[in-house]
Amino acid sequence: MLNRNIEKNNEAYSQGRAFEKGSGCLTDLNNKGWDLLAEEVSFPIAVIKEKQLLNNAKWMQEFSDRASVKLAPHGKTSMAPELFKMQLEQGCWGMSLATVPQVVNTFEHGVNRIILANQLVGAYHMKLIADLLLTTDIEFYCFVDSIENIHALGKYFSGVNVSLNILIEIGVLQGRCGWRDTQNIDPLLDAIEQYPHLHLCGISFYEGVIHGNDAAEKIVTFINSICTMVGRLYSENRFDIKDIIVTGAGSAWYDIVSRELSSNKDTLGISYIPIIRPGCYLIHDKGIYQAAQNEIISRSQLACDISGELISNLELWAYVHSVPEPGLAVIGLGKRDVAFDAGLPIPEYIYRPGNKKPQAIEGGSEVINIMDQHCMMTFGSKTSLQPGDIVIFATSHPCLTMDKWRRIGLIDSNFVVKKTIETFF
Amino acid sequence: MLNRNIEKNNEAYSQGRAFEKGSGCLTDLNNKGWDLLAEEVSFPIAVIKEKQLLNNAKWMQEFSDRASVKLAPHGKTSMAPELFKMQLEQGCWGMSLATVPQVVNTFEHGVNRIILANQLVGAYHMKLIADLLLTTDIEFYCFVDSIENIHALGKYFSGVNVSLNILIEIGVLQGRCGWRDTQNIDPLLDAIEQYPHLHLCGISFYEGVIHGNDAAEKIVTFINSICTMVGRLYSENRFDIKDIIVTGAGSAWYDIVSRELSSNKDTLGISYIPIIRPGCYLIHDKGIYQAAQNEIISRSQLACDISGELISNLELWAYVHSVPEPGLAVIGLGKRDVAFDAGLPIPEYIYRPGNKKPQAIEGGSEVINIMDQHCMMTFGSKTSLQPGDIVIFATSHPCLTMDKWRRIGLIDSNFVVKKTIETFF
Repeated sequence: MLNRNIEKNNEAYSQGRAFEKGSGCLTDLNNKGWDLLAEEVSFPIAVIKEKQLLNNAKWMQEFSDRASVKLAPHGKTSMAPELFKMQLEQGCWGMSLATVPQVVNTFEHGVNRIILANQLVGAYHMKLIADLLLTTDIEFYCFVDSIENIHALGKYFSGVNVSLNILIEIGVLQGRCGWRDTQNIDPLLDAIEQYPHLHLCGISFYEGVIHGNDAAEKIVTFINSICTMVGRLYSENRFDIKDIIVTGAGSAWYDIVSRELSSNKDTLGISYIPIIRPGCYLIHDKGIYQAAQNEIISRSQLACDISGELISNLELWAYVHSVPEPGLAVIGLGKRDVAFDAGLPIPEYIYRPGNKKPQAIEGGSEVINIMDQHCMMTFGSKTSLQPGDIVIFATSHPCLTMDKWRRIGLIDSNFVVKKTIETFF
Repeated sequence: MLNRNIEKNNEAYSQGRAFEKGSGCLTDLNNKGWDLLAEEVSFPIAVIKEKQLLNNAKWMQEFSDRASVKLAPHGKTSMAPELFKMQLEQGCWGMSLATVPQVVNTFEHGVNRIILANQLVGAYHMKLIADLLLTTDIEFYCFVDSIENIHALGKYFSGVNVSLNILIEIGVLQGRCGWRDTQNIDPLLDAIEQYPHLHLCGISFYEGVIHGNDAAEKIVTFINSICTMVGRLYSENRFDIKDIIVTGAGSAWYDIVSRELSSNKDTLGISYIPIIRPGCYLIHDKGIYQAAQNEIISRSQLACDISGELISNLELWAYVHSVPEPGLAVIGLGKRDVAFDAGLPIPEYIYRPGNKKPQAIEGGSEVINIMDQHCMMTFGSKTSLQPGDIVIFATSHPCLTMDKWRRIGLIDSNFVVKKTIETFF
């Protein structure tokens, strides 16, 4: 039987799955890898260029070190514990995550310091976290932004006699989560103080929901108001620990957040720990995050001074299925394989099996439509494409490509998958 | 350790995954299920109402039987072999699938008659299919639409001395795949006839890419031109089997396709097997496919005559994380949990833990924005919502919700998950 042959060669099969996206191979991965140019895998496939990935991990760590902030990368982007390990090895303070299942998976894979950058709601979630706190050495923080949630957490964690570290989340009008008014925070503080099991450890925010031409100015004002509040809460002895945390920043404004958190810290004379939480930097892209990074480089001398740059390292390789009209290729890559919410996949190279290596695609080639399992790409008259050719795409918005793959291949500069990493979405 | 406790209760853990989306439980699923109202799971969760699911499987089978067409449902929608089993038990002819990994998984789960409703391209894919054909009893068909692909298939399958069943795919200008010209098909036929290992078994098409106000008329013309061509090819003895297949139809036009395939068959006097391939009908939705089904009911007496109707049966349950401004709830349901490409998730019910049952949400409540892990919902002044409340959503476009879950819960009318089904994306 077919699956018996494959089973011998593929660790994924030992997990009971007949064929896992990103797992197919003809050769033994442990010995010589899967050569993409020799078509030793099932396309479409998502691959990451390992060298460039490591470059990005180092780049952001250097930025954080130079900016005197701690780095707790948002793990939701990749949800790949093997990549978290790489990030932590560079010197990260801990990991940030978005959901309780992500926290559990990440802890189970050896990460002991975790910020749930979200509210902890729900009976089962509270039990999962209380069990972790009771039975393991996890250092855990979650966000709170409402009196109702504080009472729910306070009652539950008092009931099981477990202490919970919380960070008050501050938000902006018409933003996402977060208490809206730094001037009027006492109702929240008073609720927290009813529960000795709730330990107020600091303040959090997410500036990524601030948009518009004056976004940078608005973000500075927002952070300053938060830091002023931190100063007041500090003077009122509202925090339960010495190492107060103030944390913000996604991948688009981490330079401004770092600068403002550092300068306010100096001004206030409080030794809080400023922590940034970018996630997309690790994989990066050639779309919205490349644009954001270009802005950062243009305004931040510190980012400019770091040698090298963030490099987009996630690629999708897919077959041309049909060239039904001149200049139109139908490709086996769809909404189930790649992000499409922040720009369609970007064709970069074409490869005809048997040739020596991929070549840059003719300028002007672009994906004009995407469906569940296909996309349509137009290409110029200098390009020869036929069914069975391979097109290599860059992406925009890495989070929504990563979550479509249970395994991602790490490739070397010869386009050989040297190992696969598992994702936990 | 936490995971040891969970492991005992959850079959998913035995597969080596610490926490799998859609798998969390406090109770033993085998004994009494997971009660959603008692918050015995991690939300967000995707669930399917089992009774309504079965209703839909029966409805479409009855339609196909009455329309004198065979049903080969497109399995890509759910990629859940347990649901394929349910469909086949109703009397389906076989399953349709979109990719070779889907074919392999589906065959491994016991489905022996499969149409790959796509081109078979790529060295590894050809090897997988040839191995299946050599070593198993699979009955397999794939689409071809280009001379280049025919030569690639012909050379490969001749080389390994395996016969391959092919269906010529016909397409429309500015559509997706498919040979564009039914008047000028001989170059394709001549290429096929060079390879005795390629068995031409019929013709395929996908009318779902035809749009516009006159789509129905265009589809009729399209199908008629295909059937005329089938008649010609039949008279020229171009087919390699007696039971010629003519197959088309997604979930939006299956009534017209069925009618036209049946009436042309009578006119031509050829006993081809008309096969329709809808997929979304099984899970259905309250968005684009509900709209398409309403159109079908309004124009098809046959569909109208069948008792009952297709019922949307996929729900997402998610927590309110924050109500940061009056009338605005931030909910823990994002682009990673639910389709957002054909309308945002549709809030239908709200439930406060401790209450007896969910209640219909106030009219006018709607999701106004969706991010990776959250969505923002506005609600009216008569509604009381607070963090920890649960909102229950219907969806539009089931394919792109299903692929976000490794396990989906089947619930009964008491909102208890009685079992989970695994997906293979």
